[in-house]
Amino acid sequence: MLSALELARLVEAGSLTPADVLERCAQAITAREKDVGAFTVLDLDHARETATREATTLSARPLRGLPVGFKDIFDTADFPTAYGSAIYAGHRPRADAALVAMARRAGANIVGKTVSTEMAFLDPAATRNPRNLAHTPGGSSSGSAAAVAAGMLPIAFGTQTGGSVIRPAAYCGVTGFKPSYRLLPMVGVKCFSWSLDTAGLFAASVADAAFAAAAITGRDLRIDGLDSGAPRIGLVRMHIDDEASPDMLRAVETAARAAEKHGARVTEVVLPPLLAQAWNIHGTIQNYEAARALAFEYDHHRAQMSKFLGTLLDQAAAITADAYDDARRISKRARQAFGEIMSEFDVMLAPAATGAAPRGLASTGDPRFNRLWTLLGAPCVNIAGLSDGHGLPLGVQAIGRFGRDRTMLEAAHFVERALSASH
Amino acid sequence: MLSALELARLVEAGSLTPADVLERCAQAITAREKDVGAFTVLDLDHARETATREATTLSARPLRGLPVGFKDIFDTADFPTAYGSAIYAGHRPRADAALVAMARRAGANIVGKTVSTEMAFLDPAATRNPRNLAHTPGGSSSGSAAAVAAGMLPIAFGTQTGGSVIRPAAYCGVTGFKPSYRLLPMVGVKCFSWSLDTAGLFAASVADAAFAAAAITGRDLRIDGLDSGAPRIGLVRMHIDDEASPDMLRAVETAARAAEKHGARVTEVVLPPLLAQAWNIHGTIQNYEAARALAFEYDHHRAQMSKFLGTLLDQAAAITADAYDDARRISKRARQAFGEIMSEFDVMLAPAATGAAPRGLASTGDPRFNRLWTLLGAPCVNIAGLSDGHGLPLGVQAIGRFGRDRTMLEAAHFVERALSASH
Repeated sequence: MLSALELARLVEAGSLTPADVLERCAQAITAREKDVGAFTVLDLDHARETATREATTLSARPLRGLPVGFKDIFDTADFPTAYGSAIYAGHRPRADAALVAMARRAGANIVGKTVSTEMAFLDPAATRNPRNLAHTPGGSSSGSAAAVAAGMLPIAFGTQTGGSVIRPAAYCGVTGFKPSYRLLPMVGVKCFSWSLDTAGLFAASVADAAFAAAAITGRDLRIDGLDSGAPRIGLVRMHIDDEASPDMLRAVETAARAAEKHGARVTEVVLPPLLAQAWNIHGTIQNYEAARALAFEYDHHRAQMSKFLGTLLDQAAAITADAYDDARRISKRARQAFGEIMSEFDVMLAPAATGAAPRGLASTGDPRFNRLWTLLGAPCVNIAGLSDGHGLPLGVQAIGRFGRDRTMLEAAHFVERALSASH
Repeated sequence: MLSALELARLVEAGSLTPADVLERCAQAITAREKDVGAFTVLDLDHARETATREATTLSARPLRGLPVGFKDIFDTADFPTAYGSAIYAGHRPRADAALVAMARRAGANIVGKTVSTEMAFLDPAATRNPRNLAHTPGGSSSGSAAAVAAGMLPIAFGTQTGGSVIRPAAYCGVTGFKPSYRLLPMVGVKCFSWSLDTAGLFAASVADAAFAAAAITGRDLRIDGLDSGAPRIGLVRMHIDDEASPDMLRAVETAARAAEKHGARVTEVVLPPLLAQAWNIHGTIQNYEAARALAFEYDHHRAQMSKFLGTLLDQAAAITADAYDDARRISKRARQAFGEIMSEFDVMLAPAATGAAPRGLASTGDPRFNRLWTLLGAPCVNIAGLSDGHGLPLGVQAIGRFGRDRTMLEAAHFVERALSASH
């Protein structure tokens, strides 16, 4: 994989130009894209032109001209944007999404759009897992996770409504960072559920992801080169733990023990019933909002929807405003309760998915280990580095307190290094 | 003005067809639009076709084919949508905004788009106040407020980030209803500030506004025909009260006393300093978010922005993430504090603006009496019915507890009737 930090440092030092970095990506794309299928559209020539013409200004900005890709639910004025849906085939938005514009401001060079499942929901797209082409890369940010995993891009952007950043990151063995709700703006991103949709990004390591988020937001999130103290880790015990595979449960245990060996304090945390209740009503909020967010598409283009999405929206019409309001109240109380639990921890560790990437492309896998944290708006990162012994990655999910993204990233960075030292 | 409820009842009873109702609007539009200038685009022929072709299905739906207008920052697939900005001249979105699609589902017949100030900010548009053409109708939902005030439409939609629903409603002497934050979805509405932007609507009376909101959301918000008990009213005393004109302060007092005469309990409520602090940081949140929400326009089309907006965005670039985060924490604490205050009241009364609509079109007036309630996400309604003695309306603002829109509407309805009985 390509380290965004290393590449940016080399450009900053003058050892590489933005065009050189782009050629590394272009080589990987030539080698892997035909098998992986991470992109919906790719314009390397345009990116080359930009890298050459704007070499000086790009090199001076925080992202140093690094090539990036955006999930195809982010509006872009210079690339078609189809939201993974036949309804929007060939659609060309008038403006860039806010995060796209912010990434350009920070010195990103956008080389293309990456594959999203239809409207970022569950209908699988054709992207394959670079670790094993017979397996799903996960979804809905399938292309962005796969592009980073295949070394085609150092940074790519995605979104999560259930588990669409953390799960594909786990399946592809890359770092996926889902910041606190609305740390990254969602303006100009196709909406599925306004209370849940959260932008995030993929990179080679926790420090690379933190670097990219810092560069784009101007926030003090960089953790590279830091030797922060050993974190207070909570080992999450929740009501669905027996739905994770034994090797996944072992992976979380391994990560916790590695961190403990390096000085971290590890405590088991049994989540209170309110959080199981919150887990349970994620779908009520998501689907009630989707029925409204996609009202135009449903009313005018129902026939062009997948069975997955069409059926979901059929059923969502029956959710009452009372059920939705109740779900929002539970969600609010759960956020407060989790905030209180987190006052004694820097980070929680939990499975990033039920197990390794499932075989086949008929499903993007199961988001059940992600949706609670999305609902709570808590920052999460997938820590890569472990595998199932058959070449497929197993992801460990780090979860932080809302608004404490930096603390969570530092702690995840600590766990990542502890894991890597114990190999 | 046209009462949405009365017209809907007549259609439901078969006494009027949707086409008949449309002709009433068309007559008023013919008579007033050339002076008022409420619309950016109007397609009466298309609306006539719809009213005739879909007469049966429209009549059967809750809004009964009522003609409506949408502020031109709501995306519409069949009308150009320019966000009040030269940058988007002739822009034709691919899809309807969620609220547009929901209004159509509920049986609305969209006749046109109404004038918005540039990006729903402060640069005045050309719309005139139907009560006195030499005065501003207020902004940014200038056209929607004016269209209802002039009897051209029974219902029109707007948005509020500072005071863009309540203020123009007050200036034009119509009911403006800004529901709780996100009760009406903002998907497909041009974003200025994602934490503040709130959709709302204009109608002839509180009961008409409640009827329309109920029809569109399917929520139990209708209050017509109800004789709810006398409300517990808080008379807001806040740090900016001496910035309201004497006649405005008298108007609020008059409304409170009229309600009291009919049995309401009226208590003065001095807002705690935390709410003055919250009032103060509204701009920090709004402008920090605008600098990101409008990043594409600023980076690519700065020259086509008004001086108002360009300067705002220039300055907004200096707001730090820390200042923004602090402002959000204040806002969160203020919401909790106001929720506790509201536990003893059904509604608060306060000025809807500093006074009557200012003379001239060089300014849309001052939102200082609205921004706190927008920040708190509290439901608000402008109660019309009083005037300054020179033919210009004075609006009284009713404010409710977040999520208690129905209680607030019932109480405002009570005040409105008490005022009307005391005339």
